[in-house]
Amino acid sequence: MAGSTLGTQFRITTWGESHGPGIGVVIDGCPAGLSLTENDIQTFLNRRKPGQSRYTTARREEDRVEILSGVFEGRTTGTPISLIIRNEDQRSRDYGDIAGYYRPGHADYTFDKKYGFRDYRGGGRSSGRETIGRVAAGAVAARLLSELGISFVTYSRSIGPVSIQAAPEQLLSQDRARLLAAINSNPLYMPEEEAAGRAQAYLEQCMAAQNSAGGVIEAIITGVPAGVGDPVFDKLDASLAKAIFSIGAVKGFEIGDGFAAARSTGQDNNDSFRYDETGAVTKETNHAGGILGGISDGSPIIFRAAFKPTPSISAPQRTIHKDGSNIDISIRGRHDPIIVPRAVVVVEAMAALTLADLLLTNMGAKAENLKQLYQSAQEET
Amino acid sequence: MAGSTLGTQFRITTWGESHGPGIGVVIDGCPAGLSLTENDIQTFLNRRKPGQSRYTTARREEDRVEILSGVFEGRTTGTPISLIIRNEDQRSRDYGDIAGYYRPGHADYTFDKKYGFRDYRGGGRSSGRETIGRVAAGAVAARLLSELGISFVTYSRSIGPVSIQAAPEQLLSQDRARLLAAINSNPLYMPEEEAAGRAQAYLEQCMAAQNSAGGVIEAIITGVPAGVGDPVFDKLDASLAKAIFSIGAVKGFEIGDGFAAARSTGQDNNDSFRYDETGAVTKETNHAGGILGGISDGSPIIFRAAFKPTPSISAPQRTIHKDGSNIDISIRGRHDPIIVPRAVVVVEAMAALTLADLLLTNMGAKAENLKQLYQSAQEET
Amino acid sequence: MAGSTLGTQFRITTWGESHGPGIGVVIDGCPAGLSLTENDIQTFLNRRKPGQSRYTTARREEDRVEILSGVFEGRTTGTPISLIIRNEDQRSRDYGDIAGYYRPGHADYTFDKKYGFRDYRGGGRSSGRETIGRVAAGAVAARLLSELGISFVTYSRSIGPVSIQAAPEQLLSQDRARLLAAINSNPLYMPEEEAAGRAQAYLEQCMAAQNSAGGVIEAIITGVPAGVGDPVFDKLDASLAKAIFSIGAVKGFEIGDGFAAARSTGQDNNDSFRYDETGAVTKETNHAGGILGGISDGSPIIFRAAFKPTPSISAPQRTIHKDGSNIDISIRGRHDPIIVPRAVVVVEAMAALTLADLLLTNMGAKAENLKQLYQSAQEET
Amino acid sequence: MAGSTLGTQFRITTWGESHGPGIGVVIDGCPAGLSLTENDIQTFLNRRKPGQSRYTTARREEDRVEILSGVFEGRTTGTPISLIIRNEDQRSRDYGDIAGYYRPGHADYTFDKKYGFRDYRGGGRSSGRETIGRVAAGAVAARLLSELGISFVTYSRSIGPVSIQAAPEQLLSQDRARLLAAINSNPLYMPEEEAAGRAQAYLEQCMAAQNSAGGVIEAIITGVPAGVGDPVFDKLDASLAKAIFSIGAVKGFEIGDGFAAARSTGQDNNDSFRYDETGAVTKETNHAGGILGGISDGSPIIFRAAFKPTPSISAPQRTIHKDGSNIDISIRGRHDPIIVPRAVVVVEAMAALTLADLLLTNMGAKAENLKQLYQSAQEET
Repeated sequence: MAGSTLGTQFRITTWGESHGPGIGVVIDGCPAGLSLTENDIQTFLNRRKPGQSRYTTARREEDRVEILSGVFEGRTTGTPISLIIRNEDQRSRDYGDIAGYYRPGHADYTFDKKYGFRDYRGGGRSSGRETIGRVAAGAVAARLLSELGISFVTYSRSIGPVSIQAAPEQLLSQDRARLLAAINSNPLYMPEEEAAGRAQAYLEQCMAAQNSAGGVIEAIITGVPAGVGDPVFDKLDASLAKAIFSIGAVKGFEIGDGFAAARSTGQDNNDSFRYDETGAVTKETNHAGGILGGISDGSPIIFRAAFKPTPSISAPQRTIHKDGSNIDISIRGRHDPIIVPRAVVVVEAMAALTLADLLLTNMGAKAENLKQLYQSAQEET
Repeated sequence: MAGSTLGTQFRITTWGESHGPGIGVVIDGCPAGLSLTENDIQTFLNRRKPGQSRYTTARREEDRVEILSGVFEGRTTGTPISLIIRNEDQRSRDYGDIAGYYRPGHADYTFDKKYGFRDYRGGGRSSGRETIGRVAAGAVAARLLSELGISFVTYSRSIGPVSIQAAPEQLLSQDRARLLAAINSNPLYMPEEEAAGRAQAYLEQCMAAQNSAGGVIEAIITGVPAGVGDPVFDKLDASLAKAIFSIGAVKGFEIGDGFAAARSTGQDNNDSFRYDETGAVTKETNHAGGILGGISDGSPIIFRAAFKPTPSISAPQRTIHKDGSNIDISIRGRHDPIIVPRAVVVVEAMAALTLADLLLTNMGAKAENLKQLYQSAQEET
Repeated sequence: MAGSTLGTQFRITTWGESHGPGIGVVIDGCPAGLSLTENDIQTFLNRRKPGQSRYTTARREEDRVEILSGVFEGRTTGTPISLIIRNEDQRSRDYGDIAGYYRPGHADYTFDKKYGFRDYRGGGRSSGRETIGRVAAGAVAARLLSELGISFVTYSRSIGPVSIQAAPEQLLSQDRARLLAAINSNPLYMPEEEAAGRAQAYLEQCMAAQNSAGGVIEAIITGVPAGVGDPVFDKLDASLAKAIFSIGAVKGFEIGDGFAAARSTGQDNNDSFRYDETGAVTKETNHAGGILGGISDGSPIIFRAAFKPTPSISAPQRTIHKDGSNIDISIRGRHDPIIVPRAVVVVEAMAALTLADLLLTNMGAKAENLKQLYQSAQEET
Repeated sequence: MAGSTLGTQFRITTWGESHGPGIGVVIDGCPAGLSLTENDIQTFLNRRKPGQSRYTTARREEDRVEILSGVFEGRTTGTPISLIIRNEDQRSRDYGDIAGYYRPGHADYTFDKKYGFRDYRGGGRSSGRETIGRVAAGAVAARLLSELGISFVTYSRSIGPVSIQAAPEQLLSQDRARLLAAINSNPLYMPEEEAAGRAQAYLEQCMAAQNSAGGVIEAIITGVPAGVGDPVFDKLDASLAKAIFSIGAVKGFEIGDGFAAARSTGQDNNDSFRYDETGAVTKETNHAGGILGGISDGSPIIFRAAFKPTPSISAPQRTIHKDGSNIDISIRGRHDPIIVPRAVVVVEAMAALTLADLLLTNMGAKAENLKQLYQSAQEET
């Protein structure tokens, strides 16, 4: 029952509950010699921090990261990097109620069935705060990827029924700095101003109705060399699917054209290869989303994740009590009417972690790479 | 670069290429004492065998399984079960052409970039025949699950633009034998006769146009006890996502309401718990698809996978040659105009493998289970 | 390069350096519902704490454990248990010297070759303080094993050339409380008073000569049910061998008669099975050390580990400097003249971790166990 | 319960029983582009083949390997290499006896306790024939290592009480071809003629007495670059310990001076580093056996494994029957009076597999290596 570890070579293990002393992660297998500061990590954590807009919980958490090991004189040593983020706002309120019943849409019931009991304070291990460890580790992975020229554009494609119009390729054709600025110009991280406005109006409605909303996050990864990902079970897209689907509220995942591809035809869906004038390999289209046969093809990797509406709502709901009775509840407290904006950086972190791991395992794909790295072996002894 | 292994406790390793001596799988960790015959496995393999309708390749393969180890006197011994399926129809045709260029939508280019060269005969390891190992192993997993009362209903929800109407719950409300008969009554495994008819007409059009189609497969799993799946990274839904996404042509995956949940609200999407008249826990709806917080909740598990259209089409296509030239190609040979019907059993196999593994790892979730199993330890020495 | 994780089901990940903020471990997969307090862990840590006799370093460390997650209302929750032990005595002395040269018998040179540089403060990650994480986690494993009636007797068999006389079976025939008292009656944890006296005299000689000593630790595990351990690569003895050999200074490992068995004959070495008067299975001898074919046979498990002398000695030594020169050094500072006594609990911890993991994976060995645990599945849905 | 897989990056899975259709192994993660023929593997298998001297079983097996996948046009493709060796000499004799009782020193009893029943024909999965898969896979690993200039000298150090005199370093100082010739000049693979003669005389005695013998195998690995092996749990020596200890009859393992180091002192046991006249790093001695802190130091790696006497002997023995009675048995059939000579290549194979895996995982130890390999990434897209 050890499910808190991800990755083979770049491997992370997260720990921590919502209302315990803190949340943390151990990163094992990060290559040595990478420059890394607490600030590199804090930048990522700040993107998921609560209290930054009226669409997030009012819980006050600074979420300050502390590096406990694995970094010496500003560089990674190759040994485990332990990160801790202390929980600060652990309001000592009465959890007596919540201990006795199962909130709809939450993991209360399934944790009890699995383990026999649960830490009911704020969701315990199934709290959204669990993603802090992912984001902290993802920042380190992203730091490593940036050295290889790999970068991310991640944003909200839709909030409830409101969606942006531009296709990923169109977004990508813009100047990168400008695109990132557009995404960051609104609290929903939507790269189109008009859609962001309508989405905010929609959220206001939800909030007024004590209701909540979901949405779709889209990510574009550029700079990934061709050849990354393994055939059969550890395909790049399959690994991304698992990593993204392991985020609490995700209910759907697609690569490239995704479900739309199922309605297309071979003639329309196949991407033609072409040499450009410089002799470089290009694809005329990118319906595949940058992955063929589970291996990166050198074009941008594009995927989407569907997030369900926040299950914690103030409106009355029906559920069961452990005492055997059917009851009505109304969940009070501080909850996000939507988690999509704060999940944007979580999605980016999980993608970075997946890529870092597969880039490392891919190093041994060719015997030639091995020979090149160890060529000095023959001279020794 | 070891990507051909799936699972931790119930672990499979597949091997084999389209045009080599055969395809196989080793299953390690199957519990001892399970009755198992070659026929149990053959039944599954027959469901993906080519040549059963005009919508599948004419390649003639009997795909006969042979058990090489791990079964003694009709029961599994707990040691590795090695299965082999010999390739029979390895037509000795000239592959000179295909060796030099990259077929659009295939893994030719990415394999070459990853490994430096590739086995180009029929796609080599990236051929659809690779799924034979999955299906053979999945049959063993399904055999184990059936002992626990877990069963599957898997079918085509849509072919190209043609979809069935009934929701999974409606299908499930039918008599099971009747439902399975409906699914098997047409070569597309669609449980609605009218839709199946329209889908076949659509496929005829595609074939006439030397084109191909995709579709969506839906699976319902019943009998899974609550508590299966691990929190955080090895969630049941995340593990299913990876297993299903590792099937070659899959481009999208969703659980329960999936992408539709992203457009819903908390009030509509949350499933209320209720005790029924017998005191059993029920959910009034199943938008979650049977999984909460990554752990099964005891209700039916429902998921869908989007398959892209077969990339091998006879219509002319543009691509690149390894000699540096842009060329036009037209792929001859025996290809499925759609792979969805044959992929139905592959989806079922992958789901069975995922569940078998998580059921085994879940055995140690409670210290009480451990004590119960080893209670006799105290008496000894 | 992720080598800080051990185990599959009961899985630990350690982190931390000698002179960083602390040392820690994350335990993932510990079954839920086990009662656990910080004191259970502290008891183990106190056994390896420095400064308890004149044969250990004078470094003052309280080595206080703090539970950061995974325990709620005194019981394990099934989610990761994160433990931290803060480093207190990080003397701010000048490490300029040690940064430039490679201490003989230490990992300075190999870390530099592997990672390109190293955290040279006190050995960094290769410091003996790394074992704190192992001991803390081992305490939790031992806590779990005690619920199953499994217990340990671990002691020094020899210090340098001085060895105890009694065979493990003879020790075991004593009253357990008395045996444990004998072991704890001297700072070397030798269960024979006379040998302990001679060993201390030997150590005094070593210390006077600015030299150091090694020794052999022996462990006896009782109460392990027959059937634990997997055939082929994950044998119980092979897993113990790896776990024990991963302790820094170990250079040899043997089970049962070990190297002596290589000089014996089949007639002498085979252990005859016999039913005793109660019908219980017994072995007339235990040359095998409780393991046959990699699987426990129900009799006591007996193994030994050889520890090399502490490499840090004050006597002058020859080595190389990074500047390209051959130099003479003399290592000052606080070092153990022997690490064997403090390593006794480390050996016990590693054995407990190995057993806990294999006991959990063994739960699924029989299909019958699986059926028994999930028998209620059929009734649901 | 999945114990038939070894390795992370260079990963093997073995299968097969003594009296089933065959024995096999799947190698996943072997780098692409390595030249490999069946003959490369057969050469290794021939070294463990029975019937080559009067000290091995008379069972007639050609043990012919067949490559079923993963090799194309004489080179590895990077995808799984499946190897099968058919069992030929499956004498149809009556196993009724053996099914009912437990042979001393064998895994009969423990398999029954673990799995509830066992394949009793010739030991089933616990037969020595299981090592065929290891040797076949080890041949591929050794093929890869030879490309890096890594080679092995493996031989019998002792047979029963008879041992060779020369230290490993002395053997290594000889001309390599001459040393290998000396090892192969006698059926016991002892590099000293006089000792080999005495050992054969000892074995004749054992055979006359219906008894059996054990022995010690020593291996020297040269050409391993410094830096291989991970700190903490996946140390090179710990990994070798597990790999070697997983061979059926091994009861002891040591690196370098091993148990003798426990009786030595720091002054004697520490190996001094020195630059030689060319500026290369050398060690004045090699008590450590080529590994410091779990990482290779560039000097020869030296280890020993103790093998117990063959448990199958013709002399009468006492044991228990499943019917509840204490019985006397006398095992007939074809058995090796000693398995050490045939195990020499098994030890070499396991060491090669361990090294291949750690060499691959070590590729990502430095961020610099990663950057170098993927430096072209920045130019793309």
